Amino acid sequence: MSSKDKTVSETVMDRRRMLRATGFAGAAAFLAACDSGGGKSEADTKGAPAILGKKRNLKIVTTWPKNFPGLGTGVERFAKRVNDMSSGQITIKVYAAGELVGALGAFDAVSQGKADMYHGAEYYWQGKSPAFNFFAAVPMGMIASEMNSWIRFGGGQELWDELSGKFNVKPFMCGNSGVQMGGWFKNEINSIDDFQGLRIRMPGLGGEVMKRIGATPVTKSGGEIFQALSQGNIDATEWIGPWNDLAFGFQTIVKNYYYPGIHEPGSTLSLGINLDVWNDMSQMEKAIIQAAADAENDTMLAEFNINNARSLDTLISEHGVKLHRFSDDILRKLGEVSAEVVAEAGSADDLSKRVFDSFNTARSNGMKWGAIAEQAFAAARDLATAKNT
Amino acid sequence: MSSKDKTVSETVMDRRRMLRATGFAGAAAFLAACDSGGGKSEADTKGAPAILGKKRNLKIVTTWPKNFPGLGTGVERFAKRVNDMSSGQITIKVYAAGELVGALGAFDAVSQGKADMYHGAEYYWQGKSPAFNFFAAVPMGMIASEMNSWIRFGGGQELWDELSGKFNVKPFMCGNSGVQMGGWFKNEINSIDDFQGLRIRMPGLGGEVMKRIGATPVTKSGGEIFQALSQGNIDATEWIGPWNDLAFGFQTIVKNYYYPGIHEPGSTLSLGINLDVWNDMSQMEKAIIQAAADAENDTMLAEFNINNARSLDTLISEHGVKLHRFSDDILRKLGEVSAEVVAEAGSADDLSKRVFDSFNTARSNGMKWGAIAEQAFAAARDLATAKNT
Repeated sequence: MSSKDKTVSETVMDRRRMLRATGFAGAAAFLAACDSGGGKSEADTKGAPAILGKKRNLKIVTTWPKNFPGLGTGVERFAKRVNDMSSGQITIKVYAAGELVGALGAFDAVSQGKADMYHGAEYYWQGKSPAFNFFAAVPMGMIASEMNSWIRFGGGQELWDELSGKFNVKPFMCGNSGVQMGGWFKNEINSIDDFQGLRIRMPGLGGEVMKRIGATPVTKSGGEIFQALSQGNIDATEWIGPWNDLAFGFQTIVKNYYYPGIHEPGSTLSLGINLDVWNDMSQMEKAIIQAAADAENDTMLAEFNINNARSLDTLISEHGVKLHRFSDDILRKLGEVSAEVVAEAGSADDLSKRVFDSFNTARSNGMKWGAIAEQAFAAARDLATAKNT
Repeated sequence: MSSKDKTVSETVMDRRRMLRATGFAGAAAFLAACDSGGGKSEADTKGAPAILGKKRNLKIVTTWPKNFPGLGTGVERFAKRVNDMSSGQITIKVYAAGELVGALGAFDAVSQGKADMYHGAEYYWQGKSPAFNFFAAVPMGMIASEMNSWIRFGGGQELWDELSGKFNVKPFMCGNSGVQMGGWFKNEINSIDDFQGLRIRMPGLGGEVMKRIGATPVTKSGGEIFQALSQGNIDATEWIGPWNDLAFGFQTIVKNYYYPGIHEPGSTLSLGINLDVWNDMSQMEKAIIQAAADAENDTMLAEFNINNARSLDTLISEHGVKLHRFSDDILRKLGEVSAEVVAEAGSADDLSKRVFDSFNTARSNGMKWGAIAEQAFAAARDLATAKNT
């Protein structure tokens, strides 16, 4: 996925919002606006408890267009949960990328208190530290369940707190897209040589991998990809997965759809909260935010997986898309180069090294257990199903 | 896993609890005891909002021993979340199996209003309807992420509501153990013939599969397994996975540890709430319960996976356990028999048929997407890692 997209680039900034936004600069305390009015909201029904006291109206900036399927809808679901759980005590207004700040400005906005929270993917902030990559996705990294184990029980959260804390941000996992697809290609890719000179849209560390095998990574926002592909300005592109790719219509231009997407094996989405706002919250408020983020982490992946399955069916059966697996030779080479690129990101400074070490331990554990658990079961089921159906 | 265990069978009932419990029979309204006192609890710090009004003290009965790793600790974490999120407005007291009611009595207790909630696995109630099996785990069924997609976005929750609603219960997913292991065997299992006459501890539909391939499934509660295995009364047993199995000490008796566990590929744990209690809740209370369950669904699986990985290492490196994969021939046969057993469970009545159909559609979607997403990625990573390390 990319940090930019059609809606972002086309968004006309709301002047009144702009005006309000400038007034908020540096004023985290004001953003966490309080009033002491009675907190009985319309969400309160059936004689439910009234909540009295401090009311928070929070602003969350995102790196997605409004209601972008999966990601934008996920953050809206998170905001609604918080509102419902607090009976309107905490309201969260969701700003699409470009409304308060641009997608890539979301982190700074929260760090500086111009917004209270962001929802995005940590690799967007890799310019601040390469260590951020590991909390979203790195090539040949970890799948969603492995990321969850690492962050929650493998020391990941503590390292993430340390990293984001340097920027006055408290981070949480808040969604996962699952494994992304390898991409859409005009021509078949039969050997590593076929990447030579290939103009492919792929951002971040995945793009660096492409560059090192001879391709030319091109930066295009989501909204620019379709035109670039149809006009022949690029030869290939990755986006997200069948659900989002089908909606963008790439299948009407090119037919070769490759898997697996080794560049983003389980992209974790993140919630970042201004640390002053977080520290000002009661235990109750913190518990509500944490649970809403954890719940969305579970919910979003479930939504991506089922919609990807359904959309892949549609792409193949209704649009004649040809599904290809990258060859073993290609995957080995991509793995080799990915290992170099990721190790470089993980050696930039002391904290990046510690994050990389911790990530590697979790990845190694995940691979060992996965091989005899989910992957072994899935293989057994395929074997049994092939015989039985 | 089993519904019974050492701690359960050894639990000495607290007489005062007994006394209170008998007083509670049939009194759901009393269990959801209300008082109108100020709800400011010790969880409330830093000038957090005071909550006024109805206070609920709920009782959750479980099918686990107190603080049983993963399952018992998971329900405690759920209860703490609800308490924290409601600032003590909703308290949930956790009862281990045998404290208020026995493990297998948990569902009836909630259905009849003797308790407000249960935490367990739905296959324990298969005597009421075979359809319940599909909401926990069935042989060659679905992995955790596939269950999540089915329940949340594939029509599963609606069917589950219909099924449990017949018994005055509102169900939620609330945790997952991931893929369980195939079991511990005194002797190596090299062909399907080696199951002939084998006395194996395996409950439920998995036990039925064992029976149909010539083994003798034996019912033993968790606390009875170790002794039965060491005295030679059984030749093999399944339990959960490396984390829990290591704690039980099976590795000191037998060394052959088989995978994959096709009988429980992603056991979903469930929260059931008395429907009258649920319907009496405000939108805020419902949102809190739902989010706590969803959050626990994410958290428990992460905890199981990382601890299973670590414990498997310990079993192999420190206890000389021999890890074996069931052969292709065995897995094909287990798949064939599983398909029969599961289809029978899914044809018992109209609702079971609808559940089975919906489950199968989700399973088919999950298999197709998994094959090109997580499983294809994991295979690529194994390939790349074999070369690079």
